[in-house]
Order: sequence, then structure tokens, then C-alpha cells
Amino acid sequence: MSDLLIREAKKADVEAVVRLHEADALAGHGDAWTEANGPVYEAAFATLAAHPDHTLYVAETEGAVVGTFLLSFLPGLTGVGALHAELRAVQVRSDLRSRGIGARMVAFAETEARRRGAAVLELTSNLKRVDAHRFYERLGYAKSHAGFKKKLGPAR
Amino acid sequence: MSDLLIREAKKADVEAVVRLHEADALAGHGDAWTEANGPVYEAAFATLAAHPDHTLYVAETEGAVVGTFLLSFLPGLTGVGALHAELRAVQVRSDLRSRGIGARMVAFAETEARRRGAAVLELTSNLKRVDAHRFYERLGYAKSHAGFKKKLGPAR
Repeated sequence: MSDLLIREAKKADVEAVVRLHEADALAGHGDAWTEANGPVYEAAFATLAAHPDHTLYVAETEGAVVGTFLLSFLPGLTGVGALHAELRAVQVRSDLRSRGIGARMVAFAETEARRRGAAVLELTSNLKRVDAHRFYERLGYAKSHAGFKKKLGPAR
Repeated sequence: MSDLLIREAKKADVEAVVRLHEADALAGHGDAWTEANGPVYEAAFATLAAHPDHTLYVAETEGAVVGTFLLSFLPGLTGVGALHAELRAVQVRSDLRSRGIGARMVAFAETEARRRGAAVLELTSNLKRVDAHRFYERLGYAKSHAGFKKKLGPAR
């Protein structure tokens, strides 16, 4: 993977990024690149691209998008006003795993988080992703928290 | 707790909010209201107060701040462009727990998250906070994720 390039995503990458999420059979979020969804994803990308606190990245090799992650920065009061970085929506193409692409993406995110002054890099990972959990622990991440989610229906 | 008021924090509340975090012996983040830290916290609060995606709240009863949480909104691509809400930095004064203050704060956060169009409300909670985990599960939160953190030192 010596030719791996990690760069900010462009509008032309959105379909490839969504297809990486779509291929995630283990713990995806119902993502699918369809005629109806395409404009929704493009609008969501435009929101991210215009937002100073969030950046969507792709990992590219031989002209193909093979990985993606979203890096977000959140101000806060705790930790004596620490800036928190969050690594979100991480995917590596399934046939290219265990070749160091994920480690390169995480290292890139850490460098960028340090550059922007974040005190901590955080992420949550579905409990089903046991391989990913070993991967993050190998990279020095402490599995210190439980992650809770509630889907919000319409107001009752 | 019928007189409980949940409202946006003001600058005058910052010390009380920090002291709630300072009193958290279980899983705090080294917070302490000191002469040196005070201006740092006030600057961090000013950043939050000016930011459209983050709001610091307090729960007040009889003129005293007895609880706090931070509600953050994060755009994203997954979940077909779903807006995510995050509940962060939740504290209830230790002598006033199990009286429904936390449940009122969570309900407030859910209402606000729905109003702003979030599809999901997420949070992480230190693995040591087993009582809090039962509390969130009672309120309909699924413990579906593991939360990882890495402190970022200076660049190597």
C-alpha cells in the first residue's frame, strides 16, 4: 500500500464512500446509493464540506477509493476546556483489510487532531466489530466507555 | 423536584458547572475550579455559547445549579445523511441523585434533538459508571457500542 493517498473527499467521491458503507453487512446504518438517496448524500456532503469542524476523508489507491473516515472537532468545558476530536464512520474496503490502510487512516487523523489542538481522539465502534476493537487497542486506544444510542422518532 | 428548571447555562453558571465535574470522583477528567483554570473555563464557555452546534445546559432548583449537560449536533453522511445529537458531560449533584433530575435532563435533550431534526441521540459513559448505564438502558438507550479514547500528546 505504498501508493496509498489520504485526502479530503470531493463531491465526485460521495458515491464511492456511500458504497463502502453500503457494503458493511456487519453494523451498517441502512446506507445505499440509490437514485432517491443520491441527492440526499450529496446535500449531506455539501454540509460537511462547508463546515469548519467536520472533514470527510478518503483513502485512495490506484485511483480507487478504498477507505473513508470522518473527523470531527467538538469544543467542551471538561478536561479544563479540552477540544475533543472524534473519528467517525470509518470503513476500509473488505477485500483490502489487514494491509495497514486503517492504521494509516488513524495515524492521519491523529496528526490532524494534534495539529488542531485536540487533547483526545475518541471513537465508538459497534459491539459486533470485535476485530476493529482489537485493532484500536493495538493502536493505543483505551476501551474505557460504553456507547449508547436511541433512535428518535417523531415527537410524541 | 417539581420546581426543577432546565435552561441554557450563562457565564455566571460556569463555576457551578465545573464544580459538579470536580466533585465526580468516579470518572472525572481532572476538572477543578482554580484561579488558574477559571479564565480557561470561561473562554471554553464563550466558545460553546457562540457555537450554533453546541449548547451547555444547567438544571436549577431553588436557585442552585444541581445538574448539567452539553448537547451537541453533528452532521454526517451515514444513515442517509442523518444528523446526530450527542449528549455529553452529564452530571447530577451526588446528594440529589435518584430523584428524577437526570431523567428530566435526558427528556429535555431528546425533545431538543427531535426539534432540531436529529435522527439519533448518542452518548458514551465511562465503564465505571454502572449505575448510569442501567439508567440509560431504562430510558430506552441501547448499549450497542464500545467507546475508545486516546490522549494525544505533542507531535512526535
